[in-house]
Amino acid sequence: MHQIIEEKMRIDIITLLPELLRSPFEASIMKRAIDKGLVEVHFHNLRDYSTNRQKSVDDYPFGGGAGMVMTIQPIDDCITHLKSQREYDEIIYMSPDGETLNQKMANKMSMYENIIILCGHYKGVDQRVRDHFITKEISIGDYVLSGGELGALVLSDALIRLIPGVLSDETSALTDSFQDNLLSGPIYTRPADYKGWKVPEVLTSGHAAKIDKWREDAAYEHTKNRRPDLLEGQ
Amino acid sequence: MHQIIEEKMRIDIITLLPELLRSPFEASIMKRAIDKGLVEVHFHNLRDYSTNRQKSVDDYPFGGGAGMVMTIQPIDDCITHLKSQREYDEIIYMSPDGETLNQKMANKMSMYENIIILCGHYKGVDQRVRDHFITKEISIGDYVLSGGELGALVLSDALIRLIPGVLSDETSALTDSFQDNLLSGPIYTRPADYKGWKVPEVLTSGHAAKIDKWREDAAYEHTKNRRPDLLEGQ
Repeated sequence: MHQIIEEKMRIDIITLLPELLRSPFEASIMKRAIDKGLVEVHFHNLRDYSTNRQKSVDDYPFGGGAGMVMTIQPIDDCITHLKSQREYDEIIYMSPDGETLNQKMANKMSMYENIIILCGHYKGVDQRVRDHFITKEISIGDYVLSGGELGALVLSDALIRLIPGVLSDETSALTDSFQDNLLSGPIYTRPADYKGWKVPEVLTSGHAAKIDKWREDAAYEHTKNRRPDLLEGQ
Repeated sequence: MHQIIEEKMRIDIITLLPELLRSPFEASIMKRAIDKGLVEVHFHNLRDYSTNRQKSVDDYPFGGGAGMVMTIQPIDDCITHLKSQREYDEIIYMSPDGETLNQKMANKMSMYENIIILCGHYKGVDQRVRDHFITKEISIGDYVLSGGELGALVLSDALIRLIPGVLSDETSALTDSFQDNLLSGPIYTRPADYKGWKVPEVLTSGHAAKIDKWREDAAYEHTKNRRPDLLEGQ
């Protein structure tokens, strides 16, 4: 007898602003994946885990300086609670000094079962959180955002769309930029002539081999112009 | 008589999924900036600009292949409409093959007055849109997302938090990672001892010069370990 093990990803997002995360998960691919039961996403409001009277989650930095720092206790309690319920592949902290996300990482992580994503705010979290709880620090790019929530959304979307069954056209993800170290070349759709701007003739020639060749060359040229660094490893 | 010219940024986002964008602009720094009148954000649903009976916004790619392509007409009409009302500093297309966003770009763009951000979907937009309407293509990183909306959110947040008056503590943005080509070093807050995990002694010493020195060294060490590439230009 065969048994098919259903793959399902669970993402737990720990945040000070669960309401920020709402709408992107209620639209587009992420909603579709949730509706299909291919992924489960849970928001955890850090404030619910604060044990002090004011439900505070931040405090002044030791040694002085601008900005506030997220305290350990609520994060510890939230992560410890989640870990008591299941095993996690990674406990991720979104931070501009983490490992920069790329498609290869996304491919690998899309096969995980359970992940926690901790969103930082203010000047970040107490370093002891990173030392003792976090297994992976991820940055989505070399720029600063007002919190880790947008990073968590970007990471979630990048992973979720790669889960088998999420995209309606399975081949669609395989022809994405980066999957073969080439950027996608130019694409065109109807009308063939829009206000005098015409599509390249080869594309309407019906000659499949010529079209493939043209596309390959165009993708290579485009990559060479825009991102020669991607070709270096080839 | 002096006259203070209020700086105000206007961001027009052209999208197939305006509902996806909603919650991040209703929380956190972006909401605060909008409430303070420092930024105006407008969503434009591309479907409203489609002139055909089915209100369609996409079509099959010329030459065959997987995925759909966003058509020119609705985008042309939307951008032309916006441009008839004001001048734009840039008309941006979010795309994984665009220029990779970094903090230096964000600093510069945070001084713009009016920008349009076009969010792609499916396999992207007809190349003629990029050739004739787009003035800047931006990528938030080397990974593929299900649409340009998360990129538009990331770009908006990166810019908006840099507008003077948006962050409550003005010095906060200046000590961010990347602003001086160094990553932020470790930060700590109370308690000084949490379950036996202690903060570095120097931080509770009260000796300002020693603390500064320790922080500088820690930031440098951290950058050298994590992102030696950032130090190369120094």
